[in-house]
Amino acid sequence: MKTRERILQASLQLFNEQGERAVTTNHIAAHLGISPGNLYYHFRNKQQIVTELFGRYEAQVDDYLRVPEGRALSLEDKAHYLESIFRGLWDYRFFLRDQEHLLSADPDLAERYRQFSRRCVNSGRAIYQGLAEAGILDAERTDPEVLAINSWLLMTSWISFVYTSVLDADQSELTPALLRRGVYQVLAQELGLLTEQARPAVQAMLAEYYAPLGH
Amino acid sequence: MKTRERILQASLQLFNEQGERAVTTNHIAAHLGISPGNLYYHFRNKQQIVTELFGRYEAQVDDYLRVPEGRALSLEDKAHYLESIFRGLWDYRFFLRDQEHLLSADPDLAERYRQFSRRCVNSGRAIYQGLAEAGILDAERTDPEVLAINSWLLMTSWISFVYTSVLDADQSELTPALLRRGVYQVLAQELGLLTEQARPAVQAMLAEYYAPLGH
Repeated sequence: MKTRERILQASLQLFNEQGERAVTTNHIAAHLGISPGNLYYHFRNKQQIVTELFGRYEAQVDDYLRVPEGRALSLEDKAHYLESIFRGLWDYRFFLRDQEHLLSADPDLAERYRQFSRRCVNSGRAIYQGLAEAGILDAERTDPEVLAINSWLLMTSWISFVYTSVLDADQSELTPALLRRGVYQVLAQELGLLTEQARPAVQAMLAEYYAPLGH
Repeated sequence: MKTRERILQASLQLFNEQGERAVTTNHIAAHLGISPGNLYYHFRNKQQIVTELFGRYEAQVDDYLRVPEGRALSLEDKAHYLESIFRGLWDYRFFLRDQEHLLSADPDLAERYRQFSRRCVNSGRAIYQGLAEAGILDAERTDPEVLAINSWLLMTSWISFVYTSVLDADQSELTPALLRRGVYQVLAQELGLLTEQARPAVQAMLAEYYAPLGH
């Protein structure tokens, strides 16, 4: 693997494990066994690494959120959307963890995040519209904008909720089951909106994502 | 007003305006025109001020979230709960803005927050249960746990969403209308769960809280 790519991967790992603020370019270089000068040959500063990692996160999520053309949306699509977004949030979790700081330190990144977040809400709106058109959600009661915004809020706050409110002090790790419970919370928003024909399949899907929170 | 109280109020204002990390005890003392020694006479360090402010936030929210005894829940109760919680989140917004940092720096505060957040979710569950028993929500389709967790996630992430995703770069302030839109998002979760008898009144209430996000 090229040095540039190794720097990005190591940075992502260290940022996720320790928080972006606690990790300096010197830590990254030491972790890779390269000199700080070699790191600076590839990246001007830590902010440039953060920006490049955000670009990867953004591209990954944008890629997932396409509405298929020429066919109706299916339940499998919905599960795929949700799992992919949660995976992206998890893979780049340092970003949400310290979002306020990262965005306030960099107006260009703040503007990019604003556009990205709005795109995600717009894609979500198209997806919920598609689910109503496909007869999965009751079109009369479905408000695609409300569902899209609420889904985005639920997804982007889930990991932090698990860390601050679900895990006990002696349990430091988020498990795959707890990440899947986030998918459940987003799907469960539609319990009152499902059409009779879609209800059994969605309830079976919900059961697969359920995990107790143990409060 | 006593000096101790003036220190707490000034700290809250400065933390909310500038973020807790950017404000030192020297800034707080200078803002009040008192000596750092006078501040230290009342508070050992900044963490003690943060802890005391958190205690006030906690007491305020706990106080709001009581389910009335001996009578059924009404729609007015629901509006009151939501407005009160959003007001608390706004009054102590520094806390959510830098939660990760504040909690990781102080295990006692992290444990207190965990218990507080769990209490809020439990109170929310009792409130949704009460709304189903009062015939406002369809008891068959209502899952009080899902609604309680999702409401808590929506409320605690709303202010940050407005700042990072709704406001444009040249609009720096959250307006009361945008804060009320957060109440709308929480209420709108129930669109598919309302009983026929409650629907007209809830829809009128929703219209009052609606505000366009302007994307």
